[in-house]
This record gives sequence, structure tokens and C-alpha cells, in this order.
Amino acid sequence: MEEQLARVIAAAVRPAPVRVAIPEAQGLLCAEEVVAERPLPGFDQAAVDGYAVRSVDVQGAAEQPVPLPVVGEIPAGSRQPRRLQPGQAVRIATGAPLPTLADAVVPLGFTDGNPAKVTVQRPVPSGAFVRRTGEDVQAGDVAVRRGAAIGAAQVGLLAAVGRNKVLVHPRPRVSVISIGEELVDVDRTPGQGQVYDVNSYALAAAARDAGAEVSRVGIQTADPRRLREVVEGRLLLSEIVVVAGGVGGAIGDEVRAALADLGELDTTRVAMHPGSVQGFGRLGPDAVPTFLLPANPMSALVVFEVLVRPLIKAALGKRNPYRRAVAARLLSPLTSTKGRRGFLRGQLLRDADTGEYLVQPLGTAGSHLLASLSEANCLVMVDEDVTEIAVGEEVMVSFLAQRG
Amino acid sequence: MEEQLARVIAAAVRPAPVRVAIPEAQGLLCAEEVVAERPLPGFDQAAVDGYAVRSVDVQGAAEQPVPLPVVGEIPAGSRQPRRLQPGQAVRIATGAPLPTLADAVVPLGFTDGNPAKVTVQRPVPSGAFVRRTGEDVQAGDVAVRRGAAIGAAQVGLLAAVGRNKVLVHPRPRVSVISIGEELVDVDRTPGQGQVYDVNSYALAAAARDAGAEVSRVGIQTADPRRLREVVEGRLLLSEIVVVAGGVGGAIGDEVRAALADLGELDTTRVAMHPGSVQGFGRLGPDAVPTFLLPANPMSALVVFEVLVRPLIKAALGKRNPYRRAVAARLLSPLTSTKGRRGFLRGQLLRDADTGEYLVQPLGTAGSHLLASLSEANCLVMVDEDVTEIAVGEEVMVSFLAQRG
Repeated sequence: MEEQLARVIAAAVRPAPVRVAIPEAQGLLCAEEVVAERPLPGFDQAAVDGYAVRSVDVQGAAEQPVPLPVVGEIPAGSRQPRRLQPGQAVRIATGAPLPTLADAVVPLGFTDGNPAKVTVQRPVPSGAFVRRTGEDVQAGDVAVRRGAAIGAAQVGLLAAVGRNKVLVHPRPRVSVISIGEELVDVDRTPGQGQVYDVNSYALAAAARDAGAEVSRVGIQTADPRRLREVVEGRLLLSEIVVVAGGVGGAIGDEVRAALADLGELDTTRVAMHPGSVQGFGRLGPDAVPTFLLPANPMSALVVFEVLVRPLIKAALGKRNPYRRAVAARLLSPLTSTKGRRGFLRGQLLRDADTGEYLVQPLGTAGSHLLASLSEANCLVMVDEDVTEIAVGEEVMVSFLAQRG
Repeated sequence: MEEQLARVIAAAVRPAPVRVAIPEAQGLLCAEEVVAERPLPGFDQAAVDGYAVRSVDVQGAAEQPVPLPVVGEIPAGSRQPRRLQPGQAVRIATGAPLPTLADAVVPLGFTDGNPAKVTVQRPVPSGAFVRRTGEDVQAGDVAVRRGAAIGAAQVGLLAAVGRNKVLVHPRPRVSVISIGEELVDVDRTPGQGQVYDVNSYALAAAARDAGAEVSRVGIQTADPRRLREVVEGRLLLSEIVVVAGGVGGAIGDEVRAALADLGELDTTRVAMHPGSVQGFGRLGPDAVPTFLLPANPMSALVVFEVLVRPLIKAALGKRNPYRRAVAARLLSPLTSTKGRRGFLRGQLLRDADTGEYLVQPLGTAGSHLLASLSEANCLVMVDEDVTEIAVGEEVMVSFLAQRG
């Protein structure tokens, strides 16, 4: 299992960084060090509506009101440099540039609000109600670090330093293909002996959730010539290709034959359960990581979670591509297959009193699809040499979904 | 603060549920009870490649190999009903329907693999290597509950029960407008006295992150006639309207005047810090919840987080629209404004040994934009009557972002 994961992660290819408009950068990792070219604010400005003054001129207001002539008005966005003479006041709006010589703003509420000759009723110290140049950001400060996840705050910082575009690690493109002669799409009605294609929908959703840009290619025939054509086409348009349902038995032989001369494809068994029957290789001229996943939707989702998702995260530029894992106490006993790393779906709860994690294993791997899929929020991981774990023992679990 | 939040949440309007293709349902809440109409699997089928037999016919293989004539082959997806006679075997592929009378599958590996007359080397019990009708899902089972979050597993379950569309609570449409005569868009170069518009970018990103479908309207003038026209237009296309930068001082008076006859708009101060100067009302013929947020980007993001985000989550159908909050121990002392609920950005850490949460307050509200925005992953909440908290004391913090 660890070997397979190491091989997969070694194949991680980060697509070349691209420059995108900042709203599109949300959810991606920054691929450059974004440095502020100018300080923020870029000029001393009023923090409130009021009167720009020299603070020394209003010091006397501590004893008695100080009248000052109002020699003008500076609106927000004013582009005219202004100058104050000693003993004068200028009406100023929040965000408007402070006139030269002024070192403080007297808020409207500290005055009588007179537009021509204002009476200041309370003194203010130097710097009061002024947002100073560079108070938020200094020129040369790093606004967004290389490798930082770009969330709402980072989008705001990029705008603040005047960036309309930013270099990011783009979403890797993932193609998802289902194989199985028994499959029909959900848009059709299955006949006798046919079943709906679940994998292309579930795996496409899982890949999207991991951050990929997904093409759900859907159901393809295992006919070697046709399948080879389809996969060859996808290799040109994808950073990762996922083929579900063409790995075991006779159909697996067909699929391997179809893909044989596109590159090396290893289908030796992987010591994990479910999902031991799987394949991984690097196909096409660009050696695109390509997965063969089991036909069983639950097994396919587990292999996706354990091997494909970390590859997508690594391609997105994440330093740690793995889910968070915590220790949890078992609420019912479980058994696992000897010699294979077990991954059981479970429901992770938290003891309200102690804060301790508790986990309820759900169904058994490969069956009871409904309960296991719909209630699961974690995978219980069981070591290769462990076959039974009793109630109350500690196990490691890996989160499946983030809570909203 | 609590009063304002109660008023906001009372205004929550869930847009009418819509039917969407299942890949588009990802990330939304299900608005119907999806019931399986048929069992899954829909027919008894082979779990492996092998030979379909009556288990009684191969019981003798425990003592000595049992030869059986192979009377046919059933591929996966076979739509022809087949029948077995006692003493016969049929070659069968994984997923193919079991022929009548057969009750088990002998895996290829338990035989000599002969295509005409197969020799069975090991017996199998009844039911072995068969996936039974209804083993995963019974007809009438609820595949996806009303109100359930639709993730990759739910998309898979919907496909499994043959649904190509599903009723969901759609994303509320949020329009984001920035007001301020000093603002310029990041696509332009600011002149003397001008600053970049941060709010429309940051708030649009925050709304998108909360699950909304966002229109970033961008910078608008506070000119009453023009502003009224713009807001009126957005009210027709939005479930929530957010106007940043038009709430305090003279510009606030202009904005209130512009919007006055669109509906009631309350701009009484809210006992929170930052963000006490804000407004909320329900405007237009559909009484669309409309927010006036502070001009300061950090204050605006805090008010968004505390009041707007829960409204978006409620509109999405979430039963609990709030972020997760935990208790954490303070790493440095903090001060807060008397009489106002404080929201300080902080960095939440976890003690590796004890698992205890620790929190480092970042800067002071309203300043040090960069450090506070870029490093923050939580809001420290301080009660109205608390003004100082010492190092080591416990505070409640609310998560800002999910870890990837």
C-alpha cells in the first residue's frame, strides 16, 4: 500500500502556473510571491468625517471651545493636493487625503459642525483619527506568499495591492471513464442484466471535490481499438486519467491489452482492502498518471480517496496532500483482512463532554452500499497485520468530508 | 449584536427548490426524499469471473475434483435470461446475471478453466461469490434524505438508483456593490487620493465561499438617482444584496436617502466591534435582505462573517448556519471595546501533545490589515461586558476557513 502511494505521489506533475483574474484564483494556491509596490494606505487620510487641523491649534479646547475658520472641503477621492495654514480647519470626508500641515482630524461630533467657522469643543492629539500611510501594508511587504491558499482575505489583499491578476497553480484536469458492458447511463432505462453507471458520476464528483477540473467521459466499451482511441485522446487533455471497472478478470485483460503500448501499466495487487485489484501507470508521450480502479463503486471511491486524491492535491501545489487523521475510540468491533491495509467507512462523532473522537464502523466493505456511503464521514484505517479490533480500542481515522 | 443577528436570520428566504442534473447538485442540500424504486443490485449476479453452478453439484470437490459440462457463457450486461440444468456449469463474467437454478459461482481459480468441460477443484457453499438482489439497497430505501448535503457519495447513490436529476436548494444569488468616491478598480491606476476597491472583490469571494452565486457589481457612485437605479436592478436578480462603504458619515446619509423609498433600512448602531456602523433592511417588492457594510475591508469582512454568511447558509437550507466554535487558550492578552461584542482575528493552533486549542490574536481590529488578514484562521469572540483578557484564559473562537 505505502509503496503504491509512494509511486503515485512520485508521479505528481504540477501543471505550469497560469495567470488568472483574482476572482478566479479563489481556492487555488498562489504560485508567486506577491509584494506590495506601494504602502497602504498610500497617503495619510481621514479616518472619520470631520475637520483636518493642526493638533496644536485645538489643544486649548480642553479649557474652552476653539473657533477656527473653515477654508475648504476635501471630499473622498479628491485628487487636488491641499494645504492648511496654521489656525485653519478644512472640512474632510472619511478616506479623503489629509492636507499638508494637518496632523489630526477632529470628528464632527467634537464640534458644532459649522461649515464656515467651526467651533472645536474637544482637543485631539497629533495623529488622532488619521489613517497613516503604510499603516496597513508597507511597500515591499509580502501580501500573499508563494504557496498560500487563496481565500476571500487573500483576494482582498490582492485587490488592496492593486493586482488584478495573479499567478496560481491551476486545477489539474482529470478525465473519468467507466468501463463495463453491463452499464447504462442514468439517462437511460436499464434492461435485464444491466445496471446504472455509478463510478463515472461518483468519481467525477470526488475529483471535483478534491479541486480538479473534471471531464466525465462516461461509459466506454472495453473493445481494445475503440478504448485505446478514447484514452489516447484523454491523455492529451488531462493531467490524470481515471478508468473505473476495467481491472479484474477477463475485462481487465482486454483493458490492459488495449492500453499496453501507451506505456507501462502495473496491475500487481496492492495490499489494501477494499481495492486490492487496481492498476497504475504513466501513459502517452507525456507519461500521464493513469489509474485503473475497481468496478465496485465503494471500492473505487476508497482507492480514489487513498491514492488519486493525494495526487490531485499534490498537483494543486499542496505541500501536505493528505487528509487530516485523528485517533478515535471504536464504538463496535471490527475485522479486517490479514495482510492488507484496511479502509472501512465509518461515522466519526465527538463526545460532547470529553471532546474525544468516537467512531462507528459502517457495514462491511463491498456491501451495504447505502448505509456505508450515505452515513460515512471518515475512513477507519487498519494496519496490515491487524485482523480484529475490540470495542473501546483506539484506531486512526481519516476525515472524508469537511464540515460546512 | 444578537438582536441584529436574529433579525437577519428571520429574513432568511430559501429560494424555491430546483431540479438539476446530479453533477450540478454537488455541494448543495437535497430538497426531496430520494427513494430507491428498485433493489440494488437489481438481479443476482456473479461477484467474480468463474462458473455459475448449483452448489450441491460441486460439494464433492472437497474430496476429489468434479467435472461439469460448460453449457454456455454469460457476459456482463447479458440481457438474455438463462437457465442451468442440474449437473451443468455456465461460464460467467463479473456482474453478469446468474442463470436460474444456479446459487453460487466457482471462481476461475478454483477450476482448471476449461471452456468446454470444467474441472472444479474446490467446493463453494450456496450463495458464494454471488451479489444478491437488494444486497446494497432495497426498494423503498431512502437513498438520499431531504436536507442531506450532496457530496461525491450522494452523487454516486443518486446515479445508483437511476436518478439523472434531483431537487436541490439552489445557491442564493448575492450582489456585491462597493461605494466610495475614492475607489478605483484594480484594472486601473489610482491617482492622488484614490485607493483600490477591495470590498467588492473580498466580499464576493467570501459570498462564493459561503455557497452563493455571486454578481460582483463593483464600484458604484453614491449619486442617489444612479445608485437607486443600480440597487433596484439588483433587487430583482438577487436573494441578498450587499453594499459596502456607504454607511457612515455624509456618504451614509446619501446612500440612505437613495434607498429610502425602496423599503425600511435600519442603520442604528450594532453593539459589535469592529463593524458597529452598518445597516440592514429588506428592500424592493420582494423584501430582499440588504446589508450596508463598513468601508474598512477588515470590518466589512467581519460583519459579513458574523451576519451575512449565516444568512447565505440558511438560504442554502442548512439547519445550522453557523461556523463551528471551540474554546481556546489565549497566547497573548487582548483588549476589547466595552459594551460591544468583540471579533478579533486570530490564528488558531493546536497543542501537539494535549490536542488543546491555542489562539494568537492578530493585530488590533481596523488596522494591520495585512498580518490580520493573511494569517487569520479564526475570529476570537469577546463578550460585551469584557474589556481585557489575560494570557492563558479561555476564549471562544469561531473557525474562519476549513482546512483542506
